[in-house]
Amino acid sequence: MTHTGDRHHAGFKERTRVADARDALRDAVDAHGRTERAPLTEADGRTLAATVTAERNVPHYDRAAMDGYAVRAEDTFGASDRSPAVLDRYEADEDATVGPGEAVRVHTGSALPEGADAVVMIEQVEEVGREVEVFTALAEGKNVGDVGEDVEAGQHLYDPGHRLRPSDLGMLRSVGVDEVEVYQPPEVAVIPTGEELVEAGETPDPGEVVETNGLTVSRFVERWGGEARYRDVVTDDEDKLREALERDRDADVLVTTGGSSVGERDLIPEVVDELGEVLVHGVALKPGHPVALGVVDGTPVVMLPGYPVACIINAVQFLRPALKWAGGMSVPDFPSTQATLTRKIPSEPGVRTFARVQVSEEEGETVAEPVRTSGSGILSSVALADGWVQVPEESEGIAEGKTVTVEKWEELP
Amino acid sequence: MTHTGDRHHAGFKERTRVADARDALRDAVDAHGRTERAPLTEADGRTLAATVTAERNVPHYDRAAMDGYAVRAEDTFGASDRSPAVLDRYEADEDATVGPGEAVRVHTGSALPEGADAVVMIEQVEEVGREVEVFTALAEGKNVGDVGEDVEAGQHLYDPGHRLRPSDLGMLRSVGVDEVEVYQPPEVAVIPTGEELVEAGETPDPGEVVETNGLTVSRFVERWGGEARYRDVVTDDEDKLREALERDRDADVLVTTGGSSVGERDLIPEVVDELGEVLVHGVALKPGHPVALGVVDGTPVVMLPGYPVACIINAVQFLRPALKWAGGMSVPDFPSTQATLTRKIPSEPGVRTFARVQVSEEEGETVAEPVRTSGSGILSSVALADGWVQVPEESEGIAEGKTVTVEKWEELP
Repeated sequence: MTHTGDRHHAGFKERTRVADARDALRDAVDAHGRTERAPLTEADGRTLAATVTAERNVPHYDRAAMDGYAVRAEDTFGASDRSPAVLDRYEADEDATVGPGEAVRVHTGSALPEGADAVVMIEQVEEVGREVEVFTALAEGKNVGDVGEDVEAGQHLYDPGHRLRPSDLGMLRSVGVDEVEVYQPPEVAVIPTGEELVEAGETPDPGEVVETNGLTVSRFVERWGGEARYRDVVTDDEDKLREALERDRDADVLVTTGGSSVGERDLIPEVVDELGEVLVHGVALKPGHPVALGVVDGTPVVMLPGYPVACIINAVQFLRPALKWAGGMSVPDFPSTQATLTRKIPSEPGVRTFARVQVSEEEGETVAEPVRTSGSGILSSVALADGWVQVPEESEGIAEGKTVTVEKWEELP
Repeated sequence: MTHTGDRHHAGFKERTRVADARDALRDAVDAHGRTERAPLTEADGRTLAATVTAERNVPHYDRAAMDGYAVRAEDTFGASDRSPAVLDRYEADEDATVGPGEAVRVHTGSALPEGADAVVMIEQVEEVGREVEVFTALAEGKNVGDVGEDVEAGQHLYDPGHRLRPSDLGMLRSVGVDEVEVYQPPEVAVIPTGEELVEAGETPDPGEVVETNGLTVSRFVERWGGEARYRDVVTDDEDKLREALERDRDADVLVTTGGSSVGERDLIPEVVDELGEVLVHGVALKPGHPVALGVVDGTPVVMLPGYPVACIINAVQFLRPALKWAGGMSVPDFPSTQATLTRKIPSEPGVRTFARVQVSEEEGETVAEPVRTSGSGILSSVALADGWVQVPEESEGIAEGKTVTVEKWEELP
């Protein structure tokens, strides 16, 4: 049996392993390094571009850790249930000081009045007229929160690359930080290609398909912390593809969808090779091996295949880290769930397989059911699945009944 | 031993179990029901307000599932490696039809030319001049994707309450849906209270604290899909608190921070009780039992305690579901990780304990280390933790070495 064409039916001679392809991409991506100041109210989900240290102590004053009376500890020495210490009782007052034999009313969080060095809990006293009976002996510092006990001024809090969360913002404000240096979101140009594609709103004729990959990928880009430039469809024409790539040369990452294989209409790797360099073409993953990775003038180019499932898998494997690296961000693990596999997932040795699964509870057990389709074009199988199970290269599949990790790709970050 | 005050040191007579408190809140929250149309490009993360069905078939035409030649299957009957069927070869053409004895070149995704009922893979033919030799017998329908094979027009796709993800958007566009009916985000008024609080940017004196709870809670509200009205600090004064609650009576959920316990400065439950009804005051959870839940004129009021850690725990347990219910959304589980506990977490029977943990990898194992502090005021212990472990009411704690589920509260959704 022979082939009719030369390149376009030859397939890929060699497929790069996922980890190696990712390493090649890693070497090609530099952090853009553009930063800006963000007030805390607008900093949730942003990525720190600088180390943050505390600008003040928390607490910034010696404070009462309980409701009760501020006293001098030595005045309570020897006090007990049967033999209370009797002190003069004063209400709280901003300028209150505690002299020998005196007790000033304090609430949790109050500043410890001058002269006091301990707080007796309200439950351990009895108020009698203008005096207060203290039924316990206190050590110096008892029920007092010292300056800097929670956080000390100058203390290192966060490293660059940290993605800010709501409680981080509260924390930062409490230590006197009101704005932070964060990375600007990386700019990602998303360019859908293919002569069969029509724009949204048009009714496709037979042989035509509405553009969906660019839409999905651009929404992923935003979820991952990038800014998507979602471009119009470009047809399979070398000049037009070249123009499209040139137009977005100022982007931090270029992404194309479609035309990344080795068929006669798969022109993008050629165009990228001419403008720059193709680093990887064809990866040992399934479904979705016809992906290509390249670089043009220092800008990484992720060439995603046109089949929707293949497109998503490769976007997650390659575009997401490229975007994170370009934006100075860390690449956090996806949220995941442990589940018991209800059916074998087959896999070819040497290939990393990604299987869509539906997760449900059955008799108190979390189970993952592989979605019944092997097609890389069946978008509904992704949209109706809950997550993904990876089968590593060393393995020939995962047996029914095994515990697997289901990655939830559609959830942040 | 007696108490100096009456109410403010009496503590809570009874504490409601977390699940019961949540049920009481559930009964008090109605979905606001306000919807809007959103184009797909702006619908990521939004919640569907209506059932969605496919508006067209996918594929919407009979398509070639492989690169190769479209043929009449019957013309290949009996063909084999040694005895190929020989057909007249035609290039693809929009108006191509396949007559008896003819083969037309097609690519994956091409419309199947009229007359054809099968596609032979390019690897199974040889092109010889104006003819093509087919080395295999094809059944009718072989390598043909039928109309509606992936999704049929009219097919039910999503239920109301579904939170849209990037691949859902691609899917929806492919089935001819260009905009969707979604719920408007619920409006959540976040009102920080406490006479000790100063606004951001001010330098706190001894005894004063910068407002942080409202900032953290309002950022959580946005992550959970709500729209936060982050209000200025209100001091501990019944009239001012009443005014503040009245001002936001049009909100879908009211949230206060601070003043929710039973001390003399804890006025909010009283004010809510006067304007409406307090459903729950004091919950059997730790740290953070002094939470209150109420309802004013049909609007739920979540009264969070002022200690930062207690505030966050209760926001997650009560505000999050209230907001989701008000917005017509489902309440998805948090992302979680399984880990081995490095140290016992103690817990009181009858109380649900929430322990902050740091998660790390140790010798290939994921371990969860409880953060060494029991204080409910220590915000740094949250900000520097990775997640939370729950100890249920039935349990007296979780032993070292047990496998626990670490919930990552700070991550969406």
